[in-house]
Amino acid sequence: MMKVYLYDTTLRDGAQAEGINYTVSDKLKIARKLISFGIDYLEGGWPGANPKDLEFFQEAKKLDFNKTKLAAFGSTRHPRLKVKDDPNLLNLIKSEAPVVTVFGKSWDLHVESALATTLENNLLMVYETVAFLKEVGREVVFDAEHFFDGFKNNPEYALKVIEQAVRAGADFIVLCDTNGGSLPKEIRAGVEAALKIHPRIGIHAHNDSELAVANSLIAVEAGATMVQGTINGYGERCGNANLCSVIPNLILKMGVEVNCQDNLKNLTRLSRYVAEIANLHPNPYQPYTGQSAFTHKGGVHASALLKDKGTYEHIPPELVGNHRKVSISDQAGVSNLLFNSENLGLSEEEVKTYGKELVAAIKAMEHQGYQFEGAEASLELLVRKVTGKLSEPFKIDNSKLIIEIKEDGRVLSEAVVKVRVGDTTIHTASDGNGPVNALDNALRKALLEIYPNLSELKLTDYKVRVLNEKAGTEAVVRVLIESSAGEKSINTVGVSTNIIEASLKALTDSLIYFLINNNEGTVS
Amino acid sequence: MMKVYLYDTTLRDGAQAEGINYTVSDKLKIARKLISFGIDYLEGGWPGANPKDLEFFQEAKKLDFNKTKLAAFGSTRHPRLKVKDDPNLLNLIKSEAPVVTVFGKSWDLHVESALATTLENNLLMVYETVAFLKEVGREVVFDAEHFFDGFKNNPEYALKVIEQAVRAGADFIVLCDTNGGSLPKEIRAGVEAALKIHPRIGIHAHNDSELAVANSLIAVEAGATMVQGTINGYGERCGNANLCSVIPNLILKMGVEVNCQDNLKNLTRLSRYVAEIANLHPNPYQPYTGQSAFTHKGGVHASALLKDKGTYEHIPPELVGNHRKVSISDQAGVSNLLFNSENLGLSEEEVKTYGKELVAAIKAMEHQGYQFEGAEASLELLVRKVTGKLSEPFKIDNSKLIIEIKEDGRVLSEAVVKVRVGDTTIHTASDGNGPVNALDNALRKALLEIYPNLSELKLTDYKVRVLNEKAGTEAVVRVLIESSAGEKSINTVGVSTNIIEASLKALTDSLIYFLINNNEGTVS
Repeated sequence: MMKVYLYDTTLRDGAQAEGINYTVSDKLKIARKLISFGIDYLEGGWPGANPKDLEFFQEAKKLDFNKTKLAAFGSTRHPRLKVKDDPNLLNLIKSEAPVVTVFGKSWDLHVESALATTLENNLLMVYETVAFLKEVGREVVFDAEHFFDGFKNNPEYALKVIEQAVRAGADFIVLCDTNGGSLPKEIRAGVEAALKIHPRIGIHAHNDSELAVANSLIAVEAGATMVQGTINGYGERCGNANLCSVIPNLILKMGVEVNCQDNLKNLTRLSRYVAEIANLHPNPYQPYTGQSAFTHKGGVHASALLKDKGTYEHIPPELVGNHRKVSISDQAGVSNLLFNSENLGLSEEEVKTYGKELVAAIKAMEHQGYQFEGAEASLELLVRKVTGKLSEPFKIDNSKLIIEIKEDGRVLSEAVVKVRVGDTTIHTASDGNGPVNALDNALRKALLEIYPNLSELKLTDYKVRVLNEKAGTEAVVRVLIESSAGEKSINTVGVSTNIIEASLKALTDSLIYFLINNNEGTVS
Repeated sequence: MMKVYLYDTTLRDGAQAEGINYTVSDKLKIARKLISFGIDYLEGGWPGANPKDLEFFQEAKKLDFNKTKLAAFGSTRHPRLKVKDDPNLLNLIKSEAPVVTVFGKSWDLHVESALATTLENNLLMVYETVAFLKEVGREVVFDAEHFFDGFKNNPEYALKVIEQAVRAGADFIVLCDTNGGSLPKEIRAGVEAALKIHPRIGIHAHNDSELAVANSLIAVEAGATMVQGTINGYGERCGNANLCSVIPNLILKMGVEVNCQDNLKNLTRLSRYVAEIANLHPNPYQPYTGQSAFTHKGGVHASALLKDKGTYEHIPPELVGNHRKVSISDQAGVSNLLFNSENLGLSEEEVKTYGKELVAAIKAMEHQGYQFEGAEASLELLVRKVTGKLSEPFKIDNSKLIIEIKEDGRVLSEAVVKVRVGDTTIHTASDGNGPVNALDNALRKALLEIYPNLSELKLTDYKVRVLNEKAGTEAVVRVLIESSAGEKSINTVGVSTNIIEASLKALTDSLIYFLINNNEGTVS
């Protein structure tokens, strides 16, 4: 079986994505996860390009790398400096990373325009840089920047550049589609040509044409044995090849051997962890690891899945640590309900008794503008209500909001609520940063005395959608709220022509759901 | 040159994405944009599967389709019904769509498990369905569902299914990678085999392996002449082939002829419009059309770009209506301003005098969350303010909103405003259906006496976007308001952590803009 090495550049090329800005501690956290996942090469940064990366390599010395190799990234020597005087190269050595990855120009256009040197001198720069790093005992990966553009423009020169690196002892030659503009057949041709020069060829693909994953796989098919990429495909512009798709494709679809294959089931967790550290919303539609990757919405699909899970899934989601979801929507029927019966706490008996009533209730609410996909907690409350299993832990008798925009521009938001818990009535008020925050604060203030564990519940996401926009300010709005208590998230929904009322409904559902699931014998 | 037809299923398969829930009016809006973009086939939905799609086809009769063909989607006849008694087929005909797309099973496993019928009967179902639709004069596209899985499992049967559709007169045979699990080489083999049976083969790819775009291109390379996909790649699970990448790849990279090629420069606008209607955050990293698709962050890249733009861009962004961003330079701002100076009513002299100040003011507001694309009236007001040309027709001294949710469920929204026009102060109040409507009513009531022509101005569109969702109810919200007076529409924006304040800002801007442009000598 063919073996492929995985080279992760989440911490270097991945950090070039607009909107990503890692601290040194963020980088160390991600490094630890990648090591425990069993990645082969971990590129930590460009020591010297910025102080953050120097510090990272300093701190990284304390990590236990297990089987993972740390790589430092840099460029070939300066056109007019000797290797032993080039501060960039000295920093690479000082980083003490056992692997050094240097990029060199392989596109003649770039040598002359960007580097402003001769084609001959560039060949010398490549040779001397690699030779110098080999002399000090490093494993050297040579990244041939813009290789495919160079190979199209001047194939002879592009291959000459590689030859210099090989002659100087480079361990791996990585062909970079730096601008992300190449088609699969161009990648194949480039890899095949390079393999005639060196047996160990790698691929570094960018996603500007939405082909980075395909181009990586095609390169492997053509004989490449290293794939460079990033977790979630983060990277400059449109990103790099997404290792979260490359890895399962290699293992499950192509039968290629990779060292981390026993950790495939941790892939979804790894993907979401990196998104969390990057402070980016995980892309729900991301292949393999996204929250919607195995979500079935159409009624036809749901009914087929009940009969055979293979019918609408390319792989069992458990293999990558993800899970199946069948969502309830107006496109679906009783099949979807049946599929979810366990999650919804419904016995088969109850589905029989209440099935039609439930579907009718869901459809009626959807007609009003409700949407229960992504609002599973509200759906569960609805199911409990229809099946007579809902005992509400509190009741809001009255609520009032006062928002004042003062002459000096100050904005005051104040909420007053009258809440009943059993025989007790609590009448209280709170300020807030905005009306919904004021309401949230007032409700919590009222309920915390009786339900102290409510403090565990945090509101984490708030979305507003105006449904019939043409109705102007009289439009119906839908509010989706996500709260979390520890690891579990609670998703609720509220709909009204009044955004405050819609928000209050969604807020109330989240509180009720939490209390029902976290308090024995709720007062009603 | 090879010609390929583009078949859009944003409104059908695209609507299967988790989190998307179009109203009929949303679907009509998207349809209009796709028609003006010049898409070849527009799949409107599955008439009969839900009442929404029936209504869409009813309303769609009023649209001017120009060169676009409307397609209705449905399945082959029920295993135990005659074609002329099958309500699904009758609905397809009743939709009056000139094109009917029917999907049939081509994976033997599915015929037996999901349809619970014999392989023989399935062949009959395919033949009779296509023949029936051809008899009533429809163009018929046959979607061979799960073709590639079927071709792997039982190639003989998969091809037999296609043969039936061809024999019955199908105009196009579309091979579907329904589960999205196939590799490029499997796609190529399937297309090549199908082309031996029929010359007009299409591809319908899903993105579960992050290969949908690549698989579509490989199919075209192998001879397919129809590509099905969706705008932004929206669709069930991980989505469909993203037409926003497929289209430029076909035109710019593969030299394929498509009918919409003259509209390529409108692609970015189309992509963002559909995201807006779907109420999904546009993916900034999306190839070609994303906000970061041509953003250069690395210092090396930026300095190379200054020398030669081709060095780090696979295509000039203007070709797809996108633009370049370099995070280190303010130059872009002033030249943008120069470019827009006429629209903004700025003389060249004023650009010289106020240019830097204006760019700084715009950047500062953008940093707060403002966005002036689609809020041109607010931008013009900002320009007037900075250049000293704004005389405000009124001033709001104080405003207050009271929202009360009563015990019986009734919701009251009341707004109180104190407005100054010249020396006159008007202190008044109004109810409304929701808080923003109450504010709008109160402001108009205050101003109508002095500016009677204000009654011409109608609020026509209201949108809310939560910017930093992770901040929960303290998040910053952006409100976009569209008003119209006769034919002209006025677009304004307001930003705040308080949705009421944000709405009031956008409302106020629309009133000021209208009054400035419709009243001689405004009082200040």
